[in-house]
Amino acid sequence: MTSELHALTASEVQRQIQAGALRLEDYVQSLLARYRIRDKDVNAWAFIEPDKVLEQARKLDQIPREIRGCLHGFVIGVKDVIQTQDFPTRYNSAIHAGDAPLSDASTVAILRRNGALIMGKTRTTEFAATTEAPGTKNPHDPSRSPGGSSSGSAAAVADQQIPIGLGTQTVGSVIRPSSFNGIYGLKPTWNAISAEGQKVSSLTLDTFGFMARSVEDLQALADVFALRDDEPPEAIQLSSARFAMVKTPVWPKAGPGTVAALERAAQILRDAGASVEEVALPAEFDNLLSLQNQVLQAEAGVAFYREYSTARDGMSNKLVDMAVNIDTCSKKEFLRAFDTIASLRPKFDQLAEEYTAIITPSSVDVAPVGIEWTGNSDFNGIWTALHTPVLNIPGLWGENGMPLGVALVTSRYRDQHLLQVGRAVGPLFAAEGGWKSGL
Amino acid sequence: MTSELHALTASEVQRQIQAGALRLEDYVQSLLARYRIRDKDVNAWAFIEPDKVLEQARKLDQIPREIRGCLHGFVIGVKDVIQTQDFPTRYNSAIHAGDAPLSDASTVAILRRNGALIMGKTRTTEFAATTEAPGTKNPHDPSRSPGGSSSGSAAAVADQQIPIGLGTQTVGSVIRPSSFNGIYGLKPTWNAISAEGQKVSSLTLDTFGFMARSVEDLQALADVFALRDDEPPEAIQLSSARFAMVKTPVWPKAGPGTVAALERAAQILRDAGASVEEVALPAEFDNLLSLQNQVLQAEAGVAFYREYSTARDGMSNKLVDMAVNIDTCSKKEFLRAFDTIASLRPKFDQLAEEYTAIITPSSVDVAPVGIEWTGNSDFNGIWTALHTPVLNIPGLWGENGMPLGVALVTSRYRDQHLLQVGRAVGPLFAAEGGWKSGL
Repeated sequence: MTSELHALTASEVQRQIQAGALRLEDYVQSLLARYRIRDKDVNAWAFIEPDKVLEQARKLDQIPREIRGCLHGFVIGVKDVIQTQDFPTRYNSAIHAGDAPLSDASTVAILRRNGALIMGKTRTTEFAATTEAPGTKNPHDPSRSPGGSSSGSAAAVADQQIPIGLGTQTVGSVIRPSSFNGIYGLKPTWNAISAEGQKVSSLTLDTFGFMARSVEDLQALADVFALRDDEPPEAIQLSSARFAMVKTPVWPKAGPGTVAALERAAQILRDAGASVEEVALPAEFDNLLSLQNQVLQAEAGVAFYREYSTARDGMSNKLVDMAVNIDTCSKKEFLRAFDTIASLRPKFDQLAEEYTAIITPSSVDVAPVGIEWTGNSDFNGIWTALHTPVLNIPGLWGENGMPLGVALVTSRYRDQHLLQVGRAVGPLFAAEGGWKSGL
Repeated sequence: MTSELHALTASEVQRQIQAGALRLEDYVQSLLARYRIRDKDVNAWAFIEPDKVLEQARKLDQIPREIRGCLHGFVIGVKDVIQTQDFPTRYNSAIHAGDAPLSDASTVAILRRNGALIMGKTRTTEFAATTEAPGTKNPHDPSRSPGGSSSGSAAAVADQQIPIGLGTQTVGSVIRPSSFNGIYGLKPTWNAISAEGQKVSSLTLDTFGFMARSVEDLQALADVFALRDDEPPEAIQLSSARFAMVKTPVWPKAGPGTVAALERAAQILRDAGASVEEVALPAEFDNLLSLQNQVLQAEAGVAFYREYSTARDGMSNKLVDMAVNIDTCSKKEFLRAFDTIASLRPKFDQLAEEYTAIITPSSVDVAPVGIEWTGNSDFNGIWTALHTPVLNIPGLWGENGMPLGVALVTSRYRDQHLLQVGRAVGPLFAAEGGWKSGL
């Protein structure tokens, strides 16, 4: 299967194109063929125009090799809450069902400028804010959820309809679907990349992120988005690496798959010569998830007050419930949560800097059966609140052979370091984690 | 002069319209007449289409009185970094010189839904991020700056070309121009109103705000934007009010006008029976302005990385300098500043809650001579960083009879309380502060 074009990573495609062995147009044809065969089952796309994408590919093919952008050959799906100038952005919302395209979000403009081709818009929950699913199915088992809210991007990447998908995470919307679909996903440090042009749902939590089938591909995007650590990242030697296994205060929610996967991940790392010690977060982190939720609810009330006051009839009841929080939350309580989280961030950084990285669950278990619900995100919220980078590493598995990821976490603005850890850990989990994509 | 229509506040206009004594169209004609006579000297507008505005006014006039929005009769100028669906948004940037209109920013959509009429786009500095002025003149003395970056909104409100102007503040861009132009200006609590659709320059500092010639008008907008305190605000009795006079760590920069105005303000309040005690912020606030600047620079680097990587030739050298900070700032230093500011916010709130309000300078002195520079914002930055509401009260004056405001500040999410304080203090400063607009 991997000899087929659509199965290649973006970096592999780029090398073939630059070597003169492949035209982008032919590669895009292979992705479109895959889309035509598969997407009636997966349902990953909110908007896709094959002719337009092929026309773009032909234009990019005509650019002389020497002046091509550093993402030439990268084909990217964009979550449908991130604005694009060539396709409409509809947020899975009745309010925007007839919208025309707007201008590119900052992230999309940067990708395009660097030669990337935008394939189309991927399905999401309403404004990426609710957990009601958009009808996308897990490509590894269509009876199961792909997760959310970056449902379509994760499913399309796992299904080899695109090599890279853009997502957003306010609680767990990049890391959880990455785990459920057996792909890599990076949630960078909060506001290290401008989220301008992506629908706001919670200003201090919303984080732009991206998913791929290799760390190399994630790295290429991280570089283009100017993710920079203070210290130049170095290749990781696992034999001298030191990991903390943090089960988090929500560990009792972990299902059997996650319990086994985390143990297996630790064992693989130990077998490679790394140390893995279980570390408990200090007691003051115990309530972090509920603090995170308070901030989310109050900030969503602000973010959706516009829709609430101008287009209430076009909102789901759940979104109306979120929006009315602008009136029902006490500001004092909100500020207590907001300020407490802020005080915990440097404390966590200090703890994390003692370790090569932290390993922690990416999801409570494998993708749940049923596509109406995008799954529990309790293992993700605290990292989003702490603004730390999180990298999902696939390769492990649970119930029915479904993929299950493990998350690597580090302190803020060590995104490049974390990708280096992923480069060391990823191949190991792929080789020894026991899960291989059947797609 | 005040018998002329253009001199009325928005609330006064609304009452006349609802009483059947005035048509909105006639009122808009009076504003446009004022614009035609005055704006060649003031230069407040980046984009205005009189015919389109009149057409809108006629449509609003046709709405039956019983079902009119609560801002019916309010005519509002929009700073040209806030998106509008009927007018282009050009950010005073060569990059956007030919742009077509996009969709409304959240704030504009909410105003429109409530019946307000958008008059046009007001001049600003490049992306509201630099201090290079847009050529707008202070209506009280055309040899002087109106301040910035909300230059056009402030000047147009002071000049009676509109009753209300929208602005944004990242350091001092609402409060400083309000002071320089002798008008009221409110910078609400950070993120109490969604700034979505307004150009991001520093995500944790950018604050939407608005300016008017009465507190009543500000109040009407505050209500529509759902600014809510935990406790229902009560009318302020100055005889039992307790003010703190906070000179701030930058007090040595205060010019003679500001030194005299703050003393005069305190005396007026004391004469009204209030207590005014000088309070020094604790020593840990001493570096707040430089911490604020570190956060601003680093966040601007992120916000303008899109322009930097896609359209560098269209940026001024100053903006390029800001954008390259994405590479030159140490993340550790940035985080130290970011986290320290976060830790000071609840400390300041606690201090502020002891007082009815804090009085503090709105600007280093009156508007400077020369229109190339929008003036020093050192007295504004710390409040923006602390996320507190700030209300500029006009009525005092300095050199050459130029207006000079004094700022009222309170703890986060006491915006409505602050407006109540403004309702008590404003008429007093107007009566006894010694300054009257000659326009």
